[in-house]
Amino acid sequence: MLARLGLVLLAVWLGASPAMAERYFVRDQSEYADAAKQIEAGDVIVLANGEWRDFDLVITGEGRADALITVISEEAGKVLLTGESSLRVGGEYILVRGLVFKDGYSPRGEVVSFRRSKKDIASNSRVTEIVIDNFSKPDRYESDYWVGIYGKNNRFDHNHMVGKTNKGVTLAVRLDSEESRENGNRIDHNYFGPRPVLGSNGGETLRIGTSRYSMYRSETIVENNIFDRTDGEVEIISSKSGGNVFRGNVFLKSRGTLTLRHGDDNIVERNVFMGGGKDYTGGIRVINRGQTIRDNYIEGMRGTAFSSALAIMNGVPNSPVNRYVEVEGATIENNTIIDSRRIGFNVGADEERSAPPSNSTFANNLLGGIEGESFLEVYDDVSGIAFSGNRVVAGGVAGQLSGFDQAPVAMERAENGLLYPIDPALAALGAPRDLAPVTLDKVGASWYKKPGSGEVFGSSGKVVKVQPGEDTLVDAAMAANDGDVLLLGSGEYISNRTIPLSAAITIKGAVEEGGEPPVLFFTRPTLIELREGGNLQLANLVIDGALAPDSVGNSAIRTTTYPIKSNMQIEMDRVAVRGLVVNKSFNVVSLGKSSLADRVSIKNSAFSDITGAVVSAAAETEDYGQYNVEYLEITDSSFAKIGGPIANVYRGGRDESTFGPLVTFAGNAVAESGYAATNTLGASLNLHGVQTANIERNVIAESAPIRVVHTVGTPKTTIENNQFANTPPLVLEELNFDGAHRAVLSDNVFASEADQ
Amino acid sequence: MLARLGLVLLAVWLGASPAMAERYFVRDQSEYADAAKQIEAGDVIVLANGEWRDFDLVITGEGRADALITVISEEAGKVLLTGESSLRVGGEYILVRGLVFKDGYSPRGEVVSFRRSKKDIASNSRVTEIVIDNFSKPDRYESDYWVGIYGKNNRFDHNHMVGKTNKGVTLAVRLDSEESRENGNRIDHNYFGPRPVLGSNGGETLRIGTSRYSMYRSETIVENNIFDRTDGEVEIISSKSGGNVFRGNVFLKSRGTLTLRHGDDNIVERNVFMGGGKDYTGGIRVINRGQTIRDNYIEGMRGTAFSSALAIMNGVPNSPVNRYVEVEGATIENNTIIDSRRIGFNVGADEERSAPPSNSTFANNLLGGIEGESFLEVYDDVSGIAFSGNRVVAGGVAGQLSGFDQAPVAMERAENGLLYPIDPALAALGAPRDLAPVTLDKVGASWYKKPGSGEVFGSSGKVVKVQPGEDTLVDAAMAANDGDVLLLGSGEYISNRTIPLSAAITIKGAVEEGGEPPVLFFTRPTLIELREGGNLQLANLVIDGALAPDSVGNSAIRTTTYPIKSNMQIEMDRVAVRGLVVNKSFNVVSLGKSSLADRVSIKNSAFSDITGAVVSAAAETEDYGQYNVEYLEITDSSFAKIGGPIANVYRGGRDESTFGPLVTFAGNAVAESGYAATNTLGASLNLHGVQTANIERNVIAESAPIRVVHTVGTPKTTIENNQFANTPPLVLEELNFDGAHRAVLSDNVFASEADQ
Repeated sequence: MLARLGLVLLAVWLGASPAMAERYFVRDQSEYADAAKQIEAGDVIVLANGEWRDFDLVITGEGRADALITVISEEAGKVLLTGESSLRVGGEYILVRGLVFKDGYSPRGEVVSFRRSKKDIASNSRVTEIVIDNFSKPDRYESDYWVGIYGKNNRFDHNHMVGKTNKGVTLAVRLDSEESRENGNRIDHNYFGPRPVLGSNGGETLRIGTSRYSMYRSETIVENNIFDRTDGEVEIISSKSGGNVFRGNVFLKSRGTLTLRHGDDNIVERNVFMGGGKDYTGGIRVINRGQTIRDNYIEGMRGTAFSSALAIMNGVPNSPVNRYVEVEGATIENNTIIDSRRIGFNVGADEERSAPPSNSTFANNLLGGIEGESFLEVYDDVSGIAFSGNRVVAGGVAGQLSGFDQAPVAMERAENGLLYPIDPALAALGAPRDLAPVTLDKVGASWYKKPGSGEVFGSSGKVVKVQPGEDTLVDAAMAANDGDVLLLGSGEYISNRTIPLSAAITIKGAVEEGGEPPVLFFTRPTLIELREGGNLQLANLVIDGALAPDSVGNSAIRTTTYPIKSNMQIEMDRVAVRGLVVNKSFNVVSLGKSSLADRVSIKNSAFSDITGAVVSAAAETEDYGQYNVEYLEITDSSFAKIGGPIANVYRGGRDESTFGPLVTFAGNAVAESGYAATNTLGASLNLHGVQTANIERNVIAESAPIRVVHTVGTPKTTIENNQFANTPPLVLEELNFDGAHRAVLSDNVFASEADQ
Repeated sequence: MLARLGLVLLAVWLGASPAMAERYFVRDQSEYADAAKQIEAGDVIVLANGEWRDFDLVITGEGRADALITVISEEAGKVLLTGESSLRVGGEYILVRGLVFKDGYSPRGEVVSFRRSKKDIASNSRVTEIVIDNFSKPDRYESDYWVGIYGKNNRFDHNHMVGKTNKGVTLAVRLDSEESRENGNRIDHNYFGPRPVLGSNGGETLRIGTSRYSMYRSETIVENNIFDRTDGEVEIISSKSGGNVFRGNVFLKSRGTLTLRHGDDNIVERNVFMGGGKDYTGGIRVINRGQTIRDNYIEGMRGTAFSSALAIMNGVPNSPVNRYVEVEGATIENNTIIDSRRIGFNVGADEERSAPPSNSTFANNLLGGIEGESFLEVYDDVSGIAFSGNRVVAGGVAGQLSGFDQAPVAMERAENGLLYPIDPALAALGAPRDLAPVTLDKVGASWYKKPGSGEVFGSSGKVVKVQPGEDTLVDAAMAANDGDVLLLGSGEYISNRTIPLSAAITIKGAVEEGGEPPVLFFTRPTLIELREGGNLQLANLVIDGALAPDSVGNSAIRTTTYPIKSNMQIEMDRVAVRGLVVNKSFNVVSLGKSSLADRVSIKNSAFSDITGAVVSAAAETEDYGQYNVEYLEITDSSFAKIGGPIANVYRGGRDESTFGPLVTFAGNAVAESGYAATNTLGASLNLHGVQTANIERNVIAESAPIRVVHTVGTPKTTIENNQFANTPPLVLEELNFDGAHRAVLSDNVFASEADQ
């Protein structure tokens, strides 16, 4: 009450003359509400430093160009909106600055919205120096936008967005009302920080429009932003409208591409893409009419197909608005694309996407692939593209492409960090010399720290010796912090509680040469439960299921049934797992719903007598395009009498928005596996919808068949140099592709006793 | 520190002479630990009144018969163990009394354990007046026992256990070590209060032994306990060992039976079962050798098959320990079984269970079925049972049963509440006159209130009028409490937030005669999310999906992705749902993993233009025998252009532990439904593993077929009096039963345009 009175007095004192701007200093939500009710053009509301929990912050009003309505923090970075909080801006000529969203999530569809309601949409307003840090909804498949931009002539700049783990575009420009089209909105100098792999569609970092409104011009300017490790899905930027400009942005080690998905007449210029040789890094993907791609610099890309350094797609004749409009009238010139795996023409060509590009030019580009690999690939007719003045300095060129000048060019790195030909005679080739890529210190909020490298199992932690006994391991693991290493000696470790793992820890047997590795028993259905923040490295130890309770569906390691926001890593090296037989479907690793492992790696390990799966990553059965593991690597290990599939990986759905799952199964020995009655698929290895699978150099005996089901996209399956004994033939299925199965098979040997 | 000092001083003062018993009054866990370390025979630890959070309470030591070691509460009922707490008792001659476990769960495998570790097992110890109230693990499929009894000569009495919602037996007597066999443990005067339907195996209230140790004698006495609405699964008590006595217990409106599942020579006597006419109430199920069933009183049972008032099973010849040992040498006499639906002989007879009972007697029983229904049923050979002196007072008797005296008997209710023949000449028939069923005031902790009737949508709440507009409904629903009714007028209600529902509320259109019902729109993927405690009743309103976002898998109503402990109810009456079409798989009601609806009821409602399912109850796909809905009732409603199955119900697994799911689909009109590409089963109604299905009086046109898959057990499917037009034939499958599909089909008419 005193605070309320203080506010009123301050307002009276400052506002004696109605023409004079008022400054409201507010300390809680009720004071804010009072101030917001009376605010007028030129007034300022200052939010006091501190935590504002569950704050449904709304500002609206009629500011003027010379008298903004302003909401700012007392000090930049010291006003924290936590819990279930959000910001909505309506009205016009409004400025919001300097807030930090963390330790919570928005209960609405957006964290920051440029509209208060359907009827009160912001215009001529600016949101700047806002931080949204890991402010993700707890369930990764519960969607929201972190930022929704509506209205016209708004600016969103110098904001910092890091760690969106749930579904939904990080920043969306919405065109679903007439007031939001031809909008002139400007998105500049923002830091789009690391966004982890989502494991489904809906992980774009920036989207402008949707297919439904893609015939409209948005005229949004996206410039001088940095996209740092924005790995959510195959599209970093999804432009789904016309007349947008993407200029001067920098993309650092980001999977996916800037995609001109729907809408015409967009300009992509003077952007810099640095892939750093990371998997699936890509540049620009071109669809629709009248697109201009010029003066861009692209280096170190490893993506192919949709994720190429440059992909010019085939279209659908008379395409429906939600499919692929053909490329027509594209201008692609003076781009440098260097040290990259692929440039593709007619990408996506198939029976439906049968219309090649037309009336387009491709000129004066400087192009360098990887020595000894194919680089420029053509998948259909390129006669509608006029090629001229292009130079290829490395990598193979498809035969259909004539008139390319192929010869090495000596290059050096200029002061702007980019490579240019040394020979001044080649100055007109590739990206211009005056590119000045925006730097990290010029984007985001200068007062908020940008994230580091992201190592998981650091050497930074403590090393803790754990003695054998009952619950010694549980106690040590519950006390451990990120990076800690628990060293176990020879002997029995019996855990009577499930270890709840919320840190990145290593559990390692440390025994003398020739000594017995530690043996881990557990009396609960699970030995280790991965929770938010949990990552696990196991080495040189034995897990034995002999004491596990007699119930169906036990699992030595599993994820919690609560949703987990962060992606996790699980690694096993020299681990033996045995005797998981007390009941049906006893797994080694079970990844549950709404969880995604970035990597599950198993090597030099031995598994025997297990009624379930070794790795079950098949919890997302709704066919929404979700899945549980990005990279699954099982190498140089042995498997005997595994009842379920050794690995069961399921990625359903028909969208093409994800790179994963990727599975490597190589150098393993498999015997008598895949035959449990509960293994209804009857497979020793079951890969459904896996995008890349390498099954190589395995010896598989007396086991159920390997099953590989291709769904959509261009899955790559290689099955080579395997020996099969008394094991049925491969089961290969294509669900959506007409024709023979696309797996590459070579040098596999099938033998049966009858042969011997 | 002061407190610690106080403890020490008190100890010194009380304990000056070592022979003198000490009394430690402790105020926190650290004081407790200090006291427990020094405790000796005759000592008492008093826990101070108040909340003890995350208390891993352990007591062990060597007490003596004349000098117990005691842990008690300062005042009964005022010591609360909350959060992650548990009690372990080791040693001997220990007494624990008067603790309340609530607002939390055990982080271990048990809440109360009669052992400290594998090596320190309690004997001659007693736990009494303990309350375990809703102390369930958050995830219903994460198992534990509330009470684990090990060791010998222990007593567990006058305890109160209510509301176990997660998997795992409420009280288990464990025989997995030699020290725990022939144990003489006594379980008496406990109140086993309501245990809701679990929706999977593992919902027994009391179990003694497991199949693995069932050849051992347990010799446990279970007497004078009350089992009140213990509805977890098909077995209320599962006796899996020999030599136990079940005497004088009372079963009130409890689904399932006292089952002599494994082990020989058990005695079941003087128990009283009052079913109250509730579905699936049963009495005693007999398997194995040497069982005695005498002097029991059973009234008002409605179960059949495994859940009959009395079921004598067929066995497996030379049965493995985990199957069905044949009934041999059973004595079944002087039982009264009245007003009950079924007594079955040779229950479960099939190819495997082919051994009928032998060397058994069935004498002097007083038996009454339901007038006009079959009552005593025989499924195989009964020649191994000597029948004599039995009287059947109502209900049909199978022809194979000769020598039953069939005639009505005049009966009256005696002072003990049970029915007896008026005629004194019949005094030797049925249960004895001197039964004195234990009463509620004699069981459990006298100071702790026993639960009431369990009504969900009460008339106790407020009635709140809600105006049309943006977020008016969200705000009202978030402010509502159990039993509240929200009354909506004509107009549009737009919700921009998902309504998080944690109470039992009613949302009802209240418009004048002929007025337009309210229309509910929502701009998030979901209108209403059911959370812990959420129950929903909708009436007289319209739900329209026109404003929902363009993403796959939206649902007007769904459960949270967090696990929900409590079973929920969802009711719709006069509700129209339309236009859920913005993207694929848009459902009306989605029940997610680890959730179970007791009842979903839809009547007098209309559904049109929906890309997904109307009721999706198919999230438990692991075939662990779990499912999402107990009763699903859809009646007198219409369905047009529903893409997915109208109802999709999945109950996998091969166990026979549940009564549900039960589905009624009657009096509905269906058109053009079941044809979405995402509906991979291609069914307009998909029932997999449903135990009871009634599909009657529907008119189904231009739709995909109805699909019914039977798994294990004795599923009952009736499909009668339906009219099908231009709809393919029924798809009926049996997964485990050899032979024709067991569905009862009659008076269904199939017509196609060609017929007209």
